[in-house]
Order: sequence, then C-alpha cells, then structure tokens
Amino acid sequence: MTARDQREFFTVKTVSEALTGFRPERRTPVESVGLDDALGRVPAEPVSAPHALPGFARATVDGFAVRAADTYGASEGLPSYLDLAGEARMGRPPETEVRQGTAVAIATGAPLPPGADAVLKIEHTQAATPELLEVLRPVTPGEGMVRADEDAAPGDELVRPGRPLRAQDLGMLAAAGIVELAVHARPRVSIVSTGDELVSAAAPETLPVGQVRDSSAPALAALVREAGGEPSFAGIVPDNREALSEKLREALQGSKPTTLKGSDPLSRGDLDPSSAGCDVLVVSAGSSVGSRDETAAAIASLGEPGIWCHGLAFRPGKPTILADCGGVPVIGLPGNPRSALVVFRLIGMPIVRLVGGCTEPPPEPSVRARLARDLPSAAGRLDVVQVRLDGDEAEPLFGSSSLLSILTAADGYVVVPEAATGLAAGSDVEVMLYR
Amino acid sequence: MTARDQREFFTVKTVSEALTGFRPERRTPVESVGLDDALGRVPAEPVSAPHALPGFARATVDGFAVRAADTYGASEGLPSYLDLAGEARMGRPPETEVRQGTAVAIATGAPLPPGADAVLKIEHTQAATPELLEVLRPVTPGEGMVRADEDAAPGDELVRPGRPLRAQDLGMLAAAGIVELAVHARPRVSIVSTGDELVSAAAPETLPVGQVRDSSAPALAALVREAGGEPSFAGIVPDNREALSEKLREALQGSKPTTLKGSDPLSRGDLDPSSAGCDVLVVSAGSSVGSRDETAAAIASLGEPGIWCHGLAFRPGKPTILADCGGVPVIGLPGNPRSALVVFRLIGMPIVRLVGGCTEPPPEPSVRARLARDLPSAAGRLDVVQVRLDGDEAEPLFGSSSLLSILTAADGYVVVPEAATGLAAGSDVEVMLYR
Repeated sequence: MTARDQREFFTVKTVSEALTGFRPERRTPVESVGLDDALGRVPAEPVSAPHALPGFARATVDGFAVRAADTYGASEGLPSYLDLAGEARMGRPPETEVRQGTAVAIATGAPLPPGADAVLKIEHTQAATPELLEVLRPVTPGEGMVRADEDAAPGDELVRPGRPLRAQDLGMLAAAGIVELAVHARPRVSIVSTGDELVSAAAPETLPVGQVRDSSAPALAALVREAGGEPSFAGIVPDNREALSEKLREALQGSKPTTLKGSDPLSRGDLDPSSAGCDVLVVSAGSSVGSRDETAAAIASLGEPGIWCHGLAFRPGKPTILADCGGVPVIGLPGNPRSALVVFRLIGMPIVRLVGGCTEPPPEPSVRARLARDLPSAAGRLDVVQVRLDGDEAEPLFGSSSLLSILTAADGYVVVPEAATGLAAGSDVEVMLYR
Repeated sequence: MTARDQREFFTVKTVSEALTGFRPERRTPVESVGLDDALGRVPAEPVSAPHALPGFARATVDGFAVRAADTYGASEGLPSYLDLAGEARMGRPPETEVRQGTAVAIATGAPLPPGADAVLKIEHTQAATPELLEVLRPVTPGEGMVRADEDAAPGDELVRPGRPLRAQDLGMLAAAGIVELAVHARPRVSIVSTGDELVSAAAPETLPVGQVRDSSAPALAALVREAGGEPSFAGIVPDNREALSEKLREALQGSKPTTLKGSDPLSRGDLDPSSAGCDVLVVSAGSSVGSRDETAAAIASLGEPGIWCHGLAFRPGKPTILADCGGVPVIGLPGNPRSALVVFRLIGMPIVRLVGGCTEPPPEPSVRARLARDLPSAAGRLDVVQVRLDGDEAEPLFGSSSLLSILTAADGYVVVPEAATGLAAGSDVEVMLYR
C-alpha cells in the first residue's frame, strides 16, 4: 500500500470539546501513604481535625500573662503595677494561676496559665523590683496569644480531596498528629511506541539511514510523572495492525495473553477492565497516514465504547485519537515528537490527573509578553506556538513539527484560541512557561 | 532565666542582601543518572550532539519525493507529469534514486532518496496512470522535508548545565542516543527541630497541655524536595545549648561523634567539611527569644566563618540566621511554623537549589490580582502576606505567625517590597501561587 492509497476519515473535535467532553470515569484505587511520601499526592477523602489546634491557649510574644483588665489605663507616664507570680514553662502544663493584680512570665509558645486572657509584650514593661512589674501600655483580651482552637476547631477540614498536597498541608496534618492518610494511587500509564523506523534510545551508536531513536517515549514518561502518574514502557512495535493490537491488549491486560495459535488477536471480549494492567494507555503513533490508520483500527479493536474522537482541530496535533476501551482511557498521539508532546501536555496530562483523582490541578507558571511577530491561525482551530522569551518579548519559533529542537529552544508556548484567526505582532499574550 | 532577662543582638540584613550576598560555594558532587530518573535533575556539564539529528533528510508530509525543478510551473490547469519510480520505505535506507522527471512515493518520516530535494504533498497530485503522476502545484527545494542536521548539527548544545531537565530535554537526549548523563547529586538537607515544647508528629494521640507536634519538619522536608534536595530528620532537641550543639555537629558530621566523657561539645576544629554529613543544615529554632539565642550560640560554635546574618528585615521571619559552618550553609529558621515555611521558601529553597548546581531555577506560577484591602508595611522591611484569591481579587489573610491555617487557607502570597510603605486596596499585585 502506498501513501496515496490512504484517506483519513476524522471524527474531528475541538480542544475545548475534548477537554470538557472526554472525561473518563476511571479513578485509581485508594492507598495509604505516610507524610514523608505525601507531597503532591491527591487525598482521596477529606481529612478533619481530630481535636482543637494548637490544643491550648499559647503566648505569641515573649512577656507576661495577665488579666487584660489589670492593664487598662496604664501608660509610660502613669504605669500600672502587677505582682510577679512565677513563670509559665515551655512544654509543660501551667503550674501557676494568674489572679487579679498578678502577672506570670511567659515565652512565645508556652501555654497560658489559667486566669490569664492576654500576654503583655516584654517591651511594654519594666522591672520595678524583682517581684514587681511596671506595665507601660494596656493590652486587650486575646492580645499576644492564640486561642486553643484558633488554628483548627475539632472537625475543621484540614485537607480536601482532589487537591494535591502542598508543604503547608503536610505541616497542618503533622500538627494534628495525622501521619498517614488515604490518597489515590498514582495512575499507571503504559506507553506504546509504534513506527517501522523506531529503535530504542539505547540502541547502539550508529544507526542505518532511515532509523531514528524513540525520543517521544522518554519525554512522555516525564510528562506522566509531572502529572502524578507512574509511566511504564510497553515497547516499540512496527506499523502492523496485528502486532500493534496484540501489544495494546498486553498493555491493557498487564500481561501477555496466552493465545492459541491461529486465534484472532483482534477478537474482543476477553478483556477484564477491573484488572486492567494500566489506568491510561498512550500510543505514540507512527507518523505516516497509513500508520495512523493502523493505530486507529487497532485501538478500535480494543473494546467498547471505543473511539471518542479521531482528530483534533489543533496545530500541531490534528491526528490525535481519544478512546475508552473497556473503561481505560486510550490516547493515540501524533507521530511527530513535537506534536506528541504538545498534545500530551494539553490533553493527556489532564486525563492522567483526573484518573488519579486530581480535580484541582496545581497552577502552571505563565507570564505576559508582547508578541514579536504575526501569528496566523485558522478560525475554529487551536494553535500552540512555541516561543522564546527575550525580555518581555515573545519570539515565535517556527519549523516542522518533527523538530524537537523547537521545543528545547522554547521557554514556553502561546495558545491561539479556536475563535481567533491569528494574533498580530505587538499583541499582549500569555506565555505558558515550561518548568 | 526568664524571658525578660533576654535581649537579642541582631546583625540584620534585608532579604535582597541575603539573596545576593549569602551565596554558598558548596556544590554537590556529580553523579550519573539514566533518562528515566533525569526529570528535574540538574546537568553538571553541557551535553552536545554527537552527530547530526535526525541524521538523514526526512519527509515531513505524505507524498512524493521529487526534484523541485521538475515541478516548476505546474498548476491545476496545466499539470506537470512525472514517472513513478517506486517507494521510499520507512526505517530503511532508500533503494531508489530520484532522477530528472521521476518521483518516488514517500510517507512522513521516511528517508529522502538520493537526488530528491523536496517532497510534494499527496493532496497536490493526482494519479494519471499507475505509472504516471500528475503534479498540480510546484514545490521549492527543501519543502516537505527536514535536512539531516535540522534538529541538531554535530556539536550543538543539547542541554546546558545548571538548568533542571524538562520533558523535551529528555526527548532530545534520547533522540541523540544519550541515555545517561552527569548531574549534580541531590543536596542532602538535614533538618533539626528545637523546642522544649516539641514532640514528634507521630507521638501518641493525646498530648499534655503545653506540648505541640513538630509541624515544621515535615513541611520543610516537602519544600526541600520541591527544591530538588533530599531531606533527612536529625530529630528534636530541647532548648539547651549543649544538646543543640551536639545534635548540630552530629548532623554536620554525618554520624554521632565519639566524645570522651567530659569533652567539650562546643569545641571547634574537629569538623571535616569535605566529608560533611549534609550539604545544607536547617535548624527549625525554638520560638522564644531565649531559645533563639541558644540556637545562635550553638550555630556560632560549629565552625568558621560562622554567622553571616542574625535577623532579616522581613515579616514574618525576622529571627532568621544564615551561617557558613566549615563550608556547609546553615539556616536558622524562626520558631513559628508559618514564619519558618515563609522564610524557607524565600531564602532556603534558593540556597538548596544553588548547592545542587541549579543556576536557572524553574519559573514559579503567579497571577495578577487586585488587592482587596490596604496592606501596611514599614519601609526597609519586606513583607510576605498570604492571600486567598476570589476571582481576580486577592484577600489578605491576617493573624498570628504561629497559625498554620493561614498558610493552608492561602492560594499564594504577595510580596510588599522593601522600598514600599504598604500597598493600597485596589492595587494591582502579583500573587505568587502555591502549587
């Protein structure tokens, strides 16, 4: 079959349609992790405070625990005087009480003695005698301290499900004595590369003309990790529908199925979605039209409901396939490495996050810049244009979508939305920055 | 000793002075990692292309390899005709040549046959007979293809030292057959917590009044990981100079030194910086003035050149210590958990990155917003104010710096720079977003 015999039939969707319409229901199971391993993990359920935090009223300044009423009217010109009645010790239950007319020395963080309702800063006092404190300014009740439940009342939500845990969330959990919590397992993302021209990145140094190393798989694996997933390589298969179908079924099932000689590897029905070998299947397709058709046919053979879209109104990334094969989302990427990475960043990473239970993705860095040149674009199609930043100017990087160097030279990218018919030089644009 | 006996003597610096002036020379050693583990790692040296990439001229469209000159003048009304001379196969050296007046069928990604200098898109052709191709549009040399060295010429820099590796960088390295490279080891960051009131987050459920769990250490460990470091907990020590000195020396030396009974744990000189047990030492100090003084004295005892600054013109975070103890940067953090995290994010993370060889930190997410309320600030002092975002409005969150809930409720923070004396409600501010 030559290229000219091939014709594609696309069920084309816009990127917005794909992002809102293709929402797999699959979620990874719940597992328990310790705080040490919890950064960025996605809580599977809300976690509430088991008791009040900090748990007792504490001083927030160094000074003296007092009854605020005892300080009213005090000034440098007309100080009040309080009897010194000991010291509140750090880390221990208070041993003394603050009675009317007395003060107890206290350091930041120590528990407030009974009877006290404020802490006077040391700077606003003077020692009159070793037993007598001169008060130079008044305090109001609650000043210089936090209440026993000021950080959290019992039952307050400490972390919410769906949002990846940040450093401060781990601090709050630790403060509450919660050192293990239920999170979604990392989505297992299986990556299959196809293409008669592909060899492994680790192949011997000199390649015959025509062969290229698989650059997409390692880069896609990195994006999977950024999205909180656990990538695995299923390997490279040639552009052959039967070989590809078998490889995809293997990846979905988690192990090579034992097939009797002569059985049809395209037959459906023997796939058990609940014990699937991966949570998301990514096919880095061959680059030619023929190879893409084989990929579509192989994906269609994997299970119901099957292909959701074949083609995105997207440059670079038109030949993208989204499918649901027996409950596992399958993403067929364009063959050009740059297109594959751009599509996976825009479409694939949100799917990996969602399957991993993440409903509030972390914010991505971006910066406003002035476009250095006109960007033409067709209406109804979303364009992702790589740019290099030079001060506050964004210089578009043009070239074949087979070139990875355009991505490595880029600091970020500009999205020309579907409604726009291009952007004029000098436009104020938002550049999404690579981390 | 009561709190009122304590007075602090600060060598106060501004945050800008700290960021530009405290630049440790220490760098972690170089190690080799495979591509699978290289995401976010910091290359220790430049990596160049060992040969041209893609290595051979390739078609970037499906169509026909031709001599461009043979198509000049062709149009739908007046087509040119070329003899079909076979097919360029994907992944194999070309078997046919393109001679004058001939065309060779070719798929995207296949190697260009000798003699061809362009690829005609299939859409711009028609089959006249099985052996004859009708050309409906002309092509120019170089069209529909990439050159053998268009992605990289031999010797081109593929990744540069000091910038953490991104997904596309891994793709480029894979394309070049580089599956292992030299990166800086992750900085080992030892975290020591001090405070008579502190117990481990994992302590039994009910604590006596006065005790609190160590929330800073797990949160700081998470920030260390975000900065590319490898955290380790050295443990909790009471507010006691001798105990603290010994713990800090242990952390610096990597193992508990065998000291003869009666030896002075504050003695200097037996520390070997080249075999230090950590690359950065973080002390999460006790919260009271007395405890902070003990911390400063213990840090000062660790080695030359010693304390660089004691105090930052920074809210919250004034009682910060920066020191260089025998070649290991030491960061003494404020005792309040919120202050500790804010200071470590602003001052500590850049130090961890630098020690790990990272000279081009990844961009941080931020967003422009309208300030919902006035933010007072003293000139000469940098203020970090936590904010919650409500649409495009930034609502400042006020409260004691001992409260972690202000950090967990925040979406990000606003920096009121040293030169400003506050920001008025309605100001356009940049909110640095938590990920």
